Amino acid sequence: MKLYDLEPSGNCYKVRLFCALAKIPIDLVPVDFMAGEHKTAKFLSMNPLGELPILDDNGTILRDSQAILVYLASKYASEAWLPKDPAHAAKVMQWLSTAANEVQHGPGDARLVDLFGYKIDKPTTIANSNAILPIFEAHLANNQWLEMGRVTIADIACYPYIGLSHQGGVSLEAYLNIRAWIGRIKALPNYIAMSGI
Amino acid sequence: MKLYDLEPSGNCYKVRLFCALAKIPIDLVPVDFMAGEHKTAKFLSMNPLGELPILDDNGTILRDSQAILVYLASKYASEAWLPKDPAHAAKVMQWLSTAANEVQHGPGDARLVDLFGYKIDKPTTIANSNAILPIFEAHLANNQWLEMGRVTIADIACYPYIGLSHQGGVSLEAYLNIRAWIGRIKALPNYIAMSGI
Repeated sequence: MKLYDLEPSGNCYKVRLFCALAKIPIDLVPVDFMAGEHKTAKFLSMNPLGELPILDDNGTILRDSQAILVYLASKYASEAWLPKDPAHAAKVMQWLSTAANEVQHGPGDARLVDLFGYKIDKPTTIANSNAILPIFEAHLANNQWLEMGRVTIADIACYPYIGLSHQGGVSLEAYLNIRAWIGRIKALPNYIAMSGI
Repeated sequence: MKLYDLEPSGNCYKVRLFCALAKIPIDLVPVDFMAGEHKTAKFLSMNPLGELPILDDNGTILRDSQAILVYLASKYASEAWLPKDPAHAAKVMQWLSTAANEVQHGPGDARLVDLFGYKIDKPTTIANSNAILPIFEAHLANNQWLEMGRVTIADIACYPYIGLSHQGGVSLEAYLNIRAWIGRIKALPNYIAMSGI
């Protein structure tokens, strides 16, 4: 199973991290992002959005880090990571949308501006961060993990760009519960880091 | 089962539409958006993001229209709408992220600016629309439906804000395949419309 990968991408990291935690063997295939390899015909045929990561599991090609987490959890990991019960599964899914939307367009985009020079309106990314981080902070005041009282793919999907907030100039100093949650994730068996986190 | 609902919301409409198509009985509870009812303590306790729709299925409270579609399809509808096989499920999930992110921040946000005066940068919403709509157009050149060769919750999640594009000044005139796909959705048994679509 191959993961077309970019080391500094938080979306790639969430897949690498999940595979490490759930002990899923995966072959990392580094993509030459600076040369635009992800925009070549070969890559666009796998992901027309021209983004990474892309998973290739013996011909099953998947784009989008959230969908990849759902796939890997359903197929290769314990049900603890993604419950089968519809209500519990949907509780986890809520946070996958939050990862794809509010977390991406808050601390994720702020970091894209500061670290990689993306032409995204920086004040909007800060406003988005200031809207979503207090919601995590309040939720984590009463919950050790986002759902189910244990680590699930919800945590793995949201963690990278929140953990990398400082790289976009977004401080987590005031967010004690978020910082404690980050600490719990870092303490998980088989945890792996990425640069900046 | 109650859906806290706002008629002009495409995210609420995707849940109403799915319930109609899959014949899932649901009680609509209109929320007084103009009066800020969705920002009251009662609603924030159900959805701290302060958004609609919210589903209440006998005490199971869910936010996020994509998560709600996953829940309703898993619990109350035929597997045809959301396959159980991990690879097929993940193929559908890819488009749920696309709905929550690119479709929302393209034609969805363009409409929020034009129709409701949201303070979102309009040129960005147009650029986002011009990035994502050609990807749907190309995909639908070879596919009658987004995945599985049949209608799934992927189509239902992406359809509303694409179908409402014109309300944000985004024309679908050049997108023949998207328009044909919209026509197929409108022709489904038990289809219901919303204002503007």
